[in-house]
Amino acid sequence: MHQIPTDIAERLKKRADAVELALTKALAPHSDEAAIARLQEAMAYALTEGGKRMRPFLLLETAALYGADEKAMPAAVALEMIHAYSLVHDDLPAMDDADLRRGKPSVHKAYDEAIAILVGDALLTEAFVVLTSYEAALAAPLCRELALASGMLGMVGGQMMDLYPEGNDEAHIIALQARKTGALIEAAVTMGCLVGGAPEADTKALRRYARQLGLAFQVADDLLDVTMTAEDIGKPAGRDEDQGKATFVSLYGEDGTRAKLAQINDEARAALADVSKDTQVLADLLEWQASRTN
Amino acid sequence: MHQIPTDIAERLKKRADAVELALTKALAPHSDEAAIARLQEAMAYALTEGGKRMRPFLLLETAALYGADEKAMPAAVALEMIHAYSLVHDDLPAMDDADLRRGKPSVHKAYDEAIAILVGDALLTEAFVVLTSYEAALAAPLCRELALASGMLGMVGGQMMDLYPEGNDEAHIIALQARKTGALIEAAVTMGCLVGGAPEADTKALRRYARQLGLAFQVADDLLDVTMTAEDIGKPAGRDEDQGKATFVSLYGEDGTRAKLAQINDEARAALADVSKDTQVLADLLEWQASRTN
Repeated sequence: MHQIPTDIAERLKKRADAVELALTKALAPHSDEAAIARLQEAMAYALTEGGKRMRPFLLLETAALYGADEKAMPAAVALEMIHAYSLVHDDLPAMDDADLRRGKPSVHKAYDEAIAILVGDALLTEAFVVLTSYEAALAAPLCRELALASGMLGMVGGQMMDLYPEGNDEAHIIALQARKTGALIEAAVTMGCLVGGAPEADTKALRRYARQLGLAFQVADDLLDVTMTAEDIGKPAGRDEDQGKATFVSLYGEDGTRAKLAQINDEARAALADVSKDTQVLADLLEWQASRTN
Repeated sequence: MHQIPTDIAERLKKRADAVELALTKALAPHSDEAAIARLQEAMAYALTEGGKRMRPFLLLETAALYGADEKAMPAAVALEMIHAYSLVHDDLPAMDDADLRRGKPSVHKAYDEAIAILVGDALLTEAFVVLTSYEAALAAPLCRELALASGMLGMVGGQMMDLYPEGNDEAHIIALQARKTGALIEAAVTMGCLVGGAPEADTKALRRYARQLGLAFQVADDLLDVTMTAEDIGKPAGRDEDQGKATFVSLYGEDGTRAKLAQINDEARAALADVSKDTQVLADLLEWQASRTN
């Protein structure tokens, strides 16, 4: 294995590069059919050259606590495939109608809408192909965790709540976030624990950490959405406000939201204190995440 | 268990009713969130009151050869969820743009396009939740089989070949059909064998049967498309011809296609002869299927 740096930014970059490589390998052409080769090319477009690979990072670092980060790479790949599919479908005209993603044309703009639908369907499905490369005793709980976190009561349910909002209060925003983005972040940690064979008490504490981290990410994104320009974040800025969606910033203002973020981070650190291993990297991730909003 | 009739039409109906009930139970409301309840309602709309439940029938009957049809119901439910999701996404405006499905408005017409995208995503994902209700040693190979059959090299790949055709000859139509509809029909049989613990030689012969059955279905559908009215088949008739798509009928004419169908059925029966169990029901299914086109 490559040396993993202790500095969090370097470490993120190193892990992201390894994930990128694994994703590229997972999509190596398998078919002589031109149409399927084109589908795979569009899947690779959706999957590569982008993002901080936060979810895979979290999964790999959790598994690393138990010496299993190399073994965890297929799980990380599957998780990122689910995340990538959700972005492709979210960007569709009937959904968020976003022409840009990470500064480049979204899949339905770079290809077309039908391909974007199929790219999402294929990425979602291939995630389960990848997970079943593990032995059955591990593959089955990994499939279950990922499917529950990303399905109708998880990420897809959260997307539905976002499209058809029922309220604008804090409880609603938190419930929505917990499903739409939180469930997959919690799954990252749980899947890392599964691959690493973590003790139950650790898994429980790490899930508590992940729930706060997921919330912190949403809060930070809300802050970024009002404070950054489109060029900074690679997609149109101020969209939430434009669309009249309630955010943490619309509820608490910028300063109040920063205070909220600090409080969430405290709770996340408290959860890490209950883990039997050295969780410095996961604590650093919180700091790094908070620093995005400065 | 209910008495299963020996008459094929009655038997199909009985199995379809049991599958319908299991699908309804699988989608019993799990959430207080109004948006998620609405998603579940739309998923139920896509899943229920429709179709012959051919794939679940085939899965259950294959498992029944080994006394495992009751145990196989969750696998049948998962398979039907995948089939249903594919219809919902295929009907979208950017894909086949079909307003009707089985005589009633397709999901994006009854609800809206965003919901139809999410209904498909949720059904696809829940299929894997359902499969992981089995013990790990069974869940893992079931997930793998279903994911491979429905992913980029299976059903989704076939859909891509259909949208971006490379040729109009028989080889192309057969390759397209093998992925778009054949892969899931073969998965039905393989999953039934997995649940039933079938010997490898039986699985191999039953997969051969399924490949021919899948082809027979496509050939019969091509015949029905030119010979039936919209009212008969519950969706616009003659669509393939209108869209200039090559079909078995455009290649061989009606009589030639009927001869082709008879030949395919002969090969399917030959495969059944290699199975160690009494496969009368699976032979009857071929007859019933051929009779649709008379």
